[in-house]
Amino acid sequence: MSKELDADQVAGNGLLDRRVFLRQGGGIIGAVGAAVGLAGYSRPVEAETLVVPEWTKKPGALFEPYTQPSKYETKVARGPIPPSPYNGIGPGSVRAPLQHLEGMITPNGVHYERSHNGVPDIDPAGHRLLIHGLVKKPLVFTLDALSRYPMTSRISFVECAGNSGGMYAEKPAEGTAQSLHGLVSCAEWTGVPLAMLLEEAGVDPSAKWLVAEGADAAAMSRSVPIEKVMDDALVALYQNGERIRPANGYPMRLLLPGWQGNMNVKWLRRIKLLREPAQTKDETSKYSLLLKEGKVAQFHFPLDAKSVITKPSPGVNMTSPGLYEISGIAWSGNGKITKVEVSADGGKSWAEAALSGPVLSKAITRFRLPWRWSGGPAVLQSRAIDETGYVQPTREKLIGLRGSRSQYHCNLITSWGVAANGEVKHVYA
Amino acid sequence: MSKELDADQVAGNGLLDRRVFLRQGGGIIGAVGAAVGLAGYSRPVEAETLVVPEWTKKPGALFEPYTQPSKYETKVARGPIPPSPYNGIGPGSVRAPLQHLEGMITPNGVHYERSHNGVPDIDPAGHRLLIHGLVKKPLVFTLDALSRYPMTSRISFVECAGNSGGMYAEKPAEGTAQSLHGLVSCAEWTGVPLAMLLEEAGVDPSAKWLVAEGADAAAMSRSVPIEKVMDDALVALYQNGERIRPANGYPMRLLLPGWQGNMNVKWLRRIKLLREPAQTKDETSKYSLLLKEGKVAQFHFPLDAKSVITKPSPGVNMTSPGLYEISGIAWSGNGKITKVEVSADGGKSWAEAALSGPVLSKAITRFRLPWRWSGGPAVLQSRAIDETGYVQPTREKLIGLRGSRSQYHCNLITSWGVAANGEVKHVYA
Repeated sequence: MSKELDADQVAGNGLLDRRVFLRQGGGIIGAVGAAVGLAGYSRPVEAETLVVPEWTKKPGALFEPYTQPSKYETKVARGPIPPSPYNGIGPGSVRAPLQHLEGMITPNGVHYERSHNGVPDIDPAGHRLLIHGLVKKPLVFTLDALSRYPMTSRISFVECAGNSGGMYAEKPAEGTAQSLHGLVSCAEWTGVPLAMLLEEAGVDPSAKWLVAEGADAAAMSRSVPIEKVMDDALVALYQNGERIRPANGYPMRLLLPGWQGNMNVKWLRRIKLLREPAQTKDETSKYSLLLKEGKVAQFHFPLDAKSVITKPSPGVNMTSPGLYEISGIAWSGNGKITKVEVSADGGKSWAEAALSGPVLSKAITRFRLPWRWSGGPAVLQSRAIDETGYVQPTREKLIGLRGSRSQYHCNLITSWGVAANGEVKHVYA
Repeated sequence: MSKELDADQVAGNGLLDRRVFLRQGGGIIGAVGAAVGLAGYSRPVEAETLVVPEWTKKPGALFEPYTQPSKYETKVARGPIPPSPYNGIGPGSVRAPLQHLEGMITPNGVHYERSHNGVPDIDPAGHRLLIHGLVKKPLVFTLDALSRYPMTSRISFVECAGNSGGMYAEKPAEGTAQSLHGLVSCAEWTGVPLAMLLEEAGVDPSAKWLVAEGADAAAMSRSVPIEKVMDDALVALYQNGERIRPANGYPMRLLLPGWQGNMNVKWLRRIKLLREPAQTKDETSKYSLLLKEGKVAQFHFPLDAKSVITKPSPGVNMTSPGLYEISGIAWSGNGKITKVEVSADGGKSWAEAALSGPVLSKAITRFRLPWRWSGGPAVLQSRAIDETGYVQPTREKLIGLRGSRSQYHCNLITSWGVAANGEVKHVYA
């Protein structure tokens, strides 16, 4: 290892300064890039490259009204598709292929889905949103009516309360970033602030909660404190520019930025204002957080800061020693991500990753850090810190707080073990 | 009209203060919302709304690996599909359905497409990127090799140089926001800074330009000054999180934020460094800007500030007098949008619209403004101002500068005429 390499190393086992690749402009990239040995993945020019490829020799395909991904990208799919209980229908979830995605936006085709009785086939012309309960005037909104109200757009993640639940297990579960952590996605949502609709209905001062109900066959229902609704809840109609897809709540869903996914009720059809939580089946039979010594936090809404490295990760293995970029996602239900730290030695030393802007409150933030892999064993970890100062906990710390029988809101630090052959596996470290 | 309404009106013909709907929190929305008469699009509760809809009575659809929009959203499609010259194949473009989209992100399925000889069917394993010409070491990159390089993400618009060309016509062309202005889209792009690859190849000091060539059957080729490349050019691999779709350049395209779309070469296969522009067929037979008195600006790269109202707009008509939200998009190839002003009286008076964050350099920015439509005739306009101080010009001013035979970079102010029956049409005002 040359002197320049030592100078750039900022943490153990080959982690390099995040600024190495950040600067644009030839001079700096040249000087530093050369020092860290950027070259080496390109190849000298061979005869083949001057051959005109087959696809250039014939006219290409005609225009499509709505495009699809390349046929070579079939691995970029939601999964695993769960077995189907209840005669082919029933509750379950499919996960976003985190290890094949980049940036902060999840494309609509692979946004994760949790549904409790399948995706209803809703004709938007027949869909209604009812607001009633402790209000002066109960009101009904058609989709056309809602479309006349002022809208707000925001980029926000949605994460299932049960995401990463397997991380509580005694032994490290085999799996990928997708199968272990894929119940999180991020999109630009546009809709009508629910506060505006409630004001129109006239909220009775005794109303402290509301219950939101979906039009799916499970009539999925959750109670929400009214303060959250007045703060930033949307009746979302659009996802990444187009109407929300059926799997994500077409024609409308509740969006509660940063709060557990299940509360972001899809196929929203009814909002009833109440004095107390409704204690629906969906908030009493599940989604309560087991703590130590037999205690339970029934309501535990915001999702704490969390991160996961997506590249490398199981299935996205190392090919040969040398320079890599570690890439991953971080998010917090309590505000902006302010820092992500990465370790290549199982948490002994940490280096600060670069955050890809825009860094937005309650949105996924992409982080990246250069790493020179020696070809030896390594344990990669990331930990997110948000603007409240909260630090993503180790496995030991989280289980110390909650015990090992907990199921939800698992945000402990994930460890990816890298073997000398380049294979990456989920490990505990 | 009550006193409160007068107090909120900030420009002629019913434009209301942009802050009316901006504030979150019950109190303010209540006070101001009530004053502007927010109520009225909801309906009192009728018996029908308490009826459980058909789709709630049966289990819904199973999980799909890759989802699609609702079958009720077929109008959200690219178009019009052009007639096919050259035996079914040939140059042309399809436009994004701007009037059906919201927010700043264009979903991948409807990103606009301009192609010169169809979409090539590229096997990524066989695709190569060659960098040669005035470099120390010519290099070849496979997709796998590129995937090891550090990446950058940015949300950026791409706009065809010929977008809105019909606005130069002597009489106002009939059409929609899509058919008149739909050759612009915005996505989160992720890729490798081209500067980094050039540094590895070693740029000869005599190289001042490069020519980028596509692997399509047109071998579409454009010359780019090297300063732009060193500033912010990407070899983009991902679009809104997933691999770029075939119609947008799979497996890689050049991204030159803010510069004319055609230069963002799709299916990028070759970059050659040169002393002078290559004078390819694609930059000599077209894409030159006609000016007055027979002069031509052959190279005219950045796209100036521009905006268009998408709601209401032709086909997205007014239904009844009362409160609406005017919504539209603004963008500039020279930086951030700092202000968008809206007129409802054909440019006599203007009100400042609210900008939906994040407001990013060279990205689409959504603007919104409340409007109380009296039911009388109106002419809606928007004008964008960017951080350089540039103001989107009137039709008269732009034609004064360029003459009426120009074709490209048309960014003049669009006027939508609203008739008493609510119909919206393209007009000159």
